[in-house]
Amino acid sequence: MNIINSISEMQHAADALRCEGKRIGVVPTMGYLHEGHLSLIRTAKKKSDVVVTTIFVNPAQFGPNEDLSRYPRDLDRDTRLAESAGTNILFVPNEKEMYPEGYHTYVNVEKVSEVLEGNFRPTHFRGVTTVVAKLFNITKPHVAVFGQKDAQQAAVVRQMVKDLNFDVEIIVAPIVREPDGLAMSSRNVYLSPDERKQALALSQSLDLARKRIATGEKKCEALIAEMREHITSHPSARIDYISIADATTLQELTALDHGTTALVSLAVRIGSTRLIDNALITI
Amino acid sequence: MNIINSISEMQHAADALRCEGKRIGVVPTMGYLHEGHLSLIRTAKKKSDVVVTTIFVNPAQFGPNEDLSRYPRDLDRDTRLAESAGTNILFVPNEKEMYPEGYHTYVNVEKVSEVLEGNFRPTHFRGVTTVVAKLFNITKPHVAVFGQKDAQQAAVVRQMVKDLNFDVEIIVAPIVREPDGLAMSSRNVYLSPDERKQALALSQSLDLARKRIATGEKKCEALIAEMREHITSHPSARIDYISIADATTLQELTALDHGTTALVSLAVRIGSTRLIDNALITI
Repeated sequence: MNIINSISEMQHAADALRCEGKRIGVVPTMGYLHEGHLSLIRTAKKKSDVVVTTIFVNPAQFGPNEDLSRYPRDLDRDTRLAESAGTNILFVPNEKEMYPEGYHTYVNVEKVSEVLEGNFRPTHFRGVTTVVAKLFNITKPHVAVFGQKDAQQAAVVRQMVKDLNFDVEIIVAPIVREPDGLAMSSRNVYLSPDERKQALALSQSLDLARKRIATGEKKCEALIAEMREHITSHPSARIDYISIADATTLQELTALDHGTTALVSLAVRIGSTRLIDNALITI
Repeated sequence: MNIINSISEMQHAADALRCEGKRIGVVPTMGYLHEGHLSLIRTAKKKSDVVVTTIFVNPAQFGPNEDLSRYPRDLDRDTRLAESAGTNILFVPNEKEMYPEGYHTYVNVEKVSEVLEGNFRPTHFRGVTTVVAKLFNITKPHVAVFGQKDAQQAAVVRQMVKDLNFDVEIIVAPIVREPDGLAMSSRNVYLSPDERKQALALSQSLDLARKRIATGEKKCEALIAEMREHITSHPSARIDYISIADATTLQELTALDHGTTALVSLAVRIGSTRLIDNALITI
């Protein structure tokens, strides 16, 4: 595995690979890799000849009161894990090269970025789309793999790619969960042992919704009420939102008609740790 | 010369050329080509193996009360002229493919886009950078040529390219003028014979500034006052702005220190036609 830190070196490497006819797959991450990330790398490996994993804790996607400074980092461990999963090039740029003094350009996807997470984290997706546009121009991929865990991020990136004509195929890989159902996340390390147990409220509430839908519930309001009741029975849980929305536009649904693909998603703070989870359900 | 209308066809053609080791030069235009555009195409020809000229009257860069509907168009003439200047591929997309229903993504360059033209045309540069980002992703150029006539556009595009890491060399080619000094512009066709004469106020005022600077004037306020006086002596002229600014940041200067490169620029309405002109002056 080759480790590249310089933007221009990465661009030259990508040009050389493309000239050799190699298909480049990129997996953008913020590091502190877990099994979820590794599944993205393995998916990219199947879809391309050369996998570029990027590690960059992107300040532009953190709000002023969010966890940028304490976001977990472990580059040595990430390096081993990325290589073990099949990464060929690990691209680890530094912040000063990514956002030099006088940096002023942002990519903004309207509408789909404004709801759900965007409602609670107003500049988050602008930061995501900006850094993804940069990483695409730097790594020049044929295919890019994102995780379904960040469902809205995937929808926003898809919209950007379509609108700005990035010639990149977007693949969204399934959520990887702990054996007890907790969606894997770098932020799970923030949880105390007791919070770790209460964090199951998220995946359990999604299971509850799935079961109620399977047995015929069509009203989103009723489904959300049941999920809310389950979550609030956990003393450390504070709900930011529970949403049942169209999976592409992320516009809220009132009823689940036959043929709809719904994104059931939620954000819940467990103590001071904000967790998200979701399920894609086709009726 | 090959004429391409489809975005995906253009992307495949660009990929094929890149695989053959060909260097692609792009000249983005809104058509109604004049000698200024042709000079850009000739410059691109010198800097690349294959010149892609794009023609697209970009609605996103026109304000609601601007001249989008009456902007001059003549594709047959443009086709002949583009080919005569050395274009290899003429890319002419249609509006519905460039901005399909549900289009929601914009590239915004802050600061440098907010002054001068941006002050009078608040969404103009957002439209420019968005379409240029799209055209770069579609034509996949090694080099792109823009005109110094649109000096702020060149500065904004340079900032976008740097910030978003587009791997594209930006070349800015000099203004081409009519024999009497009027900067060439597709919008010059709007001028009546009398307005055509009064339109010389712009280039004459730049000549005036150049001479006064050469003979030692360093105060921007004094230079602007003299330019203003010259222009307002023309009855049909209405000044939007006269600016002497740092050529890169476009921040206004108060005095011209040795070593400074200043952009002297102005926008003047002659009757109902809004014209711009500028001069880059190194002290």
